[in-house]
Amino acid sequence: MNTDKHRSLSEIAAALRDGSLSAGSLTETALTAHAAHAEALGAYKHVDAVKTHAMASAADAAFAAGVDTGPLQGIPVSAKDLYVVKGFPTFAGTPSAVPEDWSGEGPVIEAVRGQLGVITGKTHTVEIAFGGIGTNPHWGTPRNPWDGDAHRVPGGSSSGAGVSLNEGSALVALGTDTAGSIRIPASMTGMAGMKNTHTRWPIDGIFPLSPSLDTPGVLARSVADVAFAFTALDPRITRGTPVASVRSRGSVGGLRVGVPEKFFWDDCSPGVAEGARAALADLEKAGATLIPFELEETAEAYSYFIKGGLAAAEAFAFLNDELPGVLKTLDPAVQQRMAEGETLPTAEYLHRVRRLVVLSRAAAARMADAVDVIAHPTVPITPPTLDEVSTVEGYRPRNLMALRNTCIANLLTCCAITMPVALDDAGMPVGLQFMAGPFEEAALLSAALAAEAVLGTGRERFGVAPMVA
Amino acid sequence: MNTDKHRSLSEIAAALRDGSLSAGSLTETALTAHAAHAEALGAYKHVDAVKTHAMASAADAAFAAGVDTGPLQGIPVSAKDLYVVKGFPTFAGTPSAVPEDWSGEGPVIEAVRGQLGVITGKTHTVEIAFGGIGTNPHWGTPRNPWDGDAHRVPGGSSSGAGVSLNEGSALVALGTDTAGSIRIPASMTGMAGMKNTHTRWPIDGIFPLSPSLDTPGVLARSVADVAFAFTALDPRITRGTPVASVRSRGSVGGLRVGVPEKFFWDDCSPGVAEGARAALADLEKAGATLIPFELEETAEAYSYFIKGGLAAAEAFAFLNDELPGVLKTLDPAVQQRMAEGETLPTAEYLHRVRRLVVLSRAAAARMADAVDVIAHPTVPITPPTLDEVSTVEGYRPRNLMALRNTCIANLLTCCAITMPVALDDAGMPVGLQFMAGPFEEAALLSAALAAEAVLGTGRERFGVAPMVA
Repeated sequence: MNTDKHRSLSEIAAALRDGSLSAGSLTETALTAHAAHAEALGAYKHVDAVKTHAMASAADAAFAAGVDTGPLQGIPVSAKDLYVVKGFPTFAGTPSAVPEDWSGEGPVIEAVRGQLGVITGKTHTVEIAFGGIGTNPHWGTPRNPWDGDAHRVPGGSSSGAGVSLNEGSALVALGTDTAGSIRIPASMTGMAGMKNTHTRWPIDGIFPLSPSLDTPGVLARSVADVAFAFTALDPRITRGTPVASVRSRGSVGGLRVGVPEKFFWDDCSPGVAEGARAALADLEKAGATLIPFELEETAEAYSYFIKGGLAAAEAFAFLNDELPGVLKTLDPAVQQRMAEGETLPTAEYLHRVRRLVVLSRAAAARMADAVDVIAHPTVPITPPTLDEVSTVEGYRPRNLMALRNTCIANLLTCCAITMPVALDDAGMPVGLQFMAGPFEEAALLSAALAAEAVLGTGRERFGVAPMVA
Repeated sequence: MNTDKHRSLSEIAAALRDGSLSAGSLTETALTAHAAHAEALGAYKHVDAVKTHAMASAADAAFAAGVDTGPLQGIPVSAKDLYVVKGFPTFAGTPSAVPEDWSGEGPVIEAVRGQLGVITGKTHTVEIAFGGIGTNPHWGTPRNPWDGDAHRVPGGSSSGAGVSLNEGSALVALGTDTAGSIRIPASMTGMAGMKNTHTRWPIDGIFPLSPSLDTPGVLARSVADVAFAFTALDPRITRGTPVASVRSRGSVGGLRVGVPEKFFWDDCSPGVAEGARAALADLEKAGATLIPFELEETAEAYSYFIKGGLAAAEAFAFLNDELPGVLKTLDPAVQQRMAEGETLPTAEYLHRVRRLVVLSRAAAARMADAVDVIAHPTVPITPPTLDEVSTVEGYRPRNLMALRNTCIANLLTCCAITMPVALDDAGMPVGLQFMAGPFEEAALLSAALAAEAVLGTGRERFGVAPMVA
């Protein structure tokens, strides 16, 4: 545990600029936190203290020269091991590093480097990011720090991202989200995380799972920090209208929160729905309007998802073409689901693509008319223990449940953010998801910031720290 | 035969503006030409003289009011029967009209209407545009006007487009090109026609064959007229850099014409290669530099095409979803090829998509370095007689040969234009294709205009008129 992680990124950025804090000391604290927890939590696939310190030195040298290259200057940032980062190998959760000439750094990493952010290392990922639980038999599964006894999963596929924030080795974690892979680990580890609208941020230089749905994004310790990191990066890389700053709408007064009853609240683990409902009640008390709102497009979209969606076929096609060796050593939990994509007829694939476009447009139109955001539990289940998901039979239903709620935002081309709002009956974090229409990131963050002002950050609301960190 | 068709569109547009010509009389001439040739040539699926005259009256009323809505004001324009045109049914070459609510008018038709162009009717198309020969068993095959004895095919799939220009019922013909469907009928009927870069012009409001490759575009009686129509439309609809005017590069002096020896010149019908080579020799004499240039990406791209490419699967998926009834009554020549797409695995489909992106980039980079355009015969074969293609066995090889050269520009994301340069040993028109890299339409037209200044328009070069028109 380091003390800086209780300060917001805005405060830390200010301290870096008034000279009361240096990137070097911030980085030293981060790497010390990593070293202290590496064995117990295992957030990272690869760290390189020399390279990381060099980045911190560059940030400090720029500060000393009076140069401000952007909000992330000097801020420790972890990168999911799907991102190509020069000088750090990319394994993408597979047994072998992908060839060095496979890709150069993409725009997201370039945008971090360009403002002299400090990359602390490559965090673990589910193999080729194809899973929502966070397990990886090749490299081990990071431990969810919120259970002091059992090894519970950290959520995936950005399985090391939330853990890196919890242990304090990073203040921003770069993840990717194809069906929930940012929001699930954020939710399961008590962090905030946002899935941007697909195509908003380019996926170049990121190992693909399903290019039709993959989207890079950030996790951080609070909605405010997510907003800080998002606005630091967005103007440099967006294909939407750049968002350079975002403010809370001031209060949740009048915020129209659509609350679906169907689907999203079904079969929650003890304490999950209760925790999310309590948060909604607090928002209502503070002036938000809760509006019953069914997202009717959900059922059809989900019917494609449970048959492999677009990812199974797109992932198989990519590996088969570019890295056939990876297919031979796949995690059985990944392999079984990818097999659905191997024989999928193109007509069915294109049918899904076409229907998802139609459903996305319909959902966006109805949401725009009726609500500001839609709210529901981010993940319906308590993070399972490693033991519970050690067989394919144990894994599959839990993986599906972990992804069930989050995948809808991907399938319907929405943006969405999760914020920590409760601990469930097992003492594990519960996330509340706000979802908004395509390219509505600014409005989504504005609403989430107002909600966080009511609910507090995870740490403030829970009143306790993780058991292991 | 009407006299106006010997005047360029620039001259006609000027005459419309100086009052020496009215849209009404121009349209009357066009509809008279149609009526005179309807039975012999059969260019149109549907005409509606009342609606067409009303459009001409609107154009004249605007001229009278001193309003200039754009270069196409008052110009007779035929539309391939894939375009949704309000008030005209869309059959897309199928036995039944597609439901009226299937789509509204798309941007291309809106851009014609918006400048008060005069739509003369819907020209015939191969069923769902899936074929390069031009046949249609449901509605008959327009006759190629260049053979006075035999009924030779007009080229497809925009099978009525080139015929409408030949008979004088339109001065601009809107077509679509997925593998050659603008350039083949243009070449086979002695006209010019350009396939724009995919995505340059939107395909909304156009019955799809293969959305990954479909592109709308224009045919006209000369390169100059193609340039006139292209620049009239492009600024209103392009997703590239708008081209509002284009000039000949002045002369072909120094024009670097890449001439491949492999592939494009193989197995030409008597007189085709000779005609194209003679045109190239004339260009060389006028100062162009002929450069041996192999498009190495051709072989792999074509290997996908002969297995159904992207079109077979995309067409099947669309019909199966949206218009399953059409599948039951398909022209056997179409059905047999579409069957290849019905069972295509998604992995193979995505493999083709991925490889075509890679090949397109490689081709564009090498072309940009070495040549201004690539030149070769547009279509290697003499337009077959209807008799020769009346069985699937007779149809298939000829259809494949008709498409062989043109499909490469589609597969490699190039733009390309055909211009008439010779008559082959059967007395049928031969086209020379210029191909250029993605979004190089302005440079392509500039080169083709300079070439046309050397070679003459088809009518000028051939010295004879069509046998039937």
